[in-house]
Amino acid sequence: MKQHQETLVVRTPGRGLVEITRETSAIVARSGVTTGLAVVFCAHTSASLLIQENADPDVRADLLAFLARLAPDGDPRYRHDSEGPDDMAAHLRTALGRSSESIPVVASRLALGTWQGLYLAEHRTAPHTRRLVVHVTGT
Amino acid sequence: MKQHQETLVVRTPGRGLVEITRETSAIVARSGVTTGLAVVFCAHTSASLLIQENADPDVRADLLAFLARLAPDGDPRYRHDSEGPDDMAAHLRTALGRSSESIPVVASRLALGTWQGLYLAEHRTAPHTRRLVVHVTGT
Amino acid sequence: MKQHQETLVVRTPGRGLVEITRETSAIVARSGVTTGLAVVFCAHTSASLLIQENADPDVRADLLAFLARLAPDGDPRYRHDSEGPDDMAAHLRTALGRSSESIPVVASRLALGTWQGLYLAEHRTAPHTRRLVVHVTGT
Repeated sequence: MKQHQETLVVRTPGRGLVEITRETSAIVARSGVTTGLAVVFCAHTSASLLIQENADPDVRADLLAFLARLAPDGDPRYRHDSEGPDDMAAHLRTALGRSSESIPVVASRLALGTWQGLYLAEHRTAPHTRRLVVHVTGT
Repeated sequence: MKQHQETLVVRTPGRGLVEITRETSAIVARSGVTTGLAVVFCAHTSASLLIQENADPDVRADLLAFLARLAPDGDPRYRHDSEGPDDMAAHLRTALGRSSESIPVVASRLALGTWQGLYLAEHRTAPHTRRLVVHVTGT
Repeated sequence: MKQHQETLVVRTPGRGLVEITRETSAIVARSGVTTGLAVVFCAHTSASLLIQENADPDVRADLLAFLARLAPDGDPRYRHDSEGPDDMAAHLRTALGRSSESIPVVASRLALGTWQGLYLAEHRTAPHTRRLVVHVTGT
């Protein structure tokens, strides 16, 4: 068994979903792992990871609208707003999402289903540089 | 350290929670791993994984009713409805759930607590065949 | 590659977030792993794990208030209330959270971002003793 670790830097254009399937797959390829596990970790508290449909872009639009209804910007009940009206909303959306995704590697590829894409969800309205760590183990 | 990977196919009767603790434990047993980690991955965007109480069935009924209030079928605000009124609701419930669960293996068994069961949550109303990948590593 | 497993017992003072970054980091240090992965698993159905901001305590207060609005105690629509009005609310908040967190180990340390802390979220109102399993692998 071997392991391989890389930092993946993603520049986001502000709030929205950025697909990172290709970049993550490239790291799996560089790891030389045929059978194993890939773990992607997001080192931020206002961005999260998500596996969702990569076909119809309406799915992503609906998901963002859903999160906006659930954890709206500028809710007067928030105490924390140091960085603006999207600050606490971004923390809440991150808490509803995931800080890591674990995906088996089968036959040298991520075992994603036909319609699954891996996304970084940027929850702040301004562009950010996000740092992910991708950890691959296996044989 | 060794690793073991199996595909677990689950036929769901439509929306609801299907317990997969026994099937997952059987894969851990076949892996021969005594001390390690089991990762279960769900390769779908309208079904998710969940660890919840396996005693009172009312807990699962309340959970499903909660998800129905949070992400109702046929919400007129959804744009995506290619496969019917439960289509986008299923994507949202998947996003609130988890695509993978990671459970340590201790003394050849999943380290689940006394009241914990591992469930596949089917979010579509029609029966589906769901494909999971179970990855076990350890010694 | 080696692995190291420890049980981490956390006594909670009732509902709220208990930071466990230090305790988890100590287990990583004892594992002797320099490059690898740490998985923390929560063996309960009314407590969950969360990575969130560890700077402004208002973030945690806002998060708890958000969960209280989303899954309130004593909702008359709940069927399950064997252990009181906070019983089902605790299960729902656990389902929205995570049963495990996976964090890469880089240079002998958890690869948490500057503002990230690892928390155990106690969702019951009474104090509880919670059992976590920390699994570390790597070289």
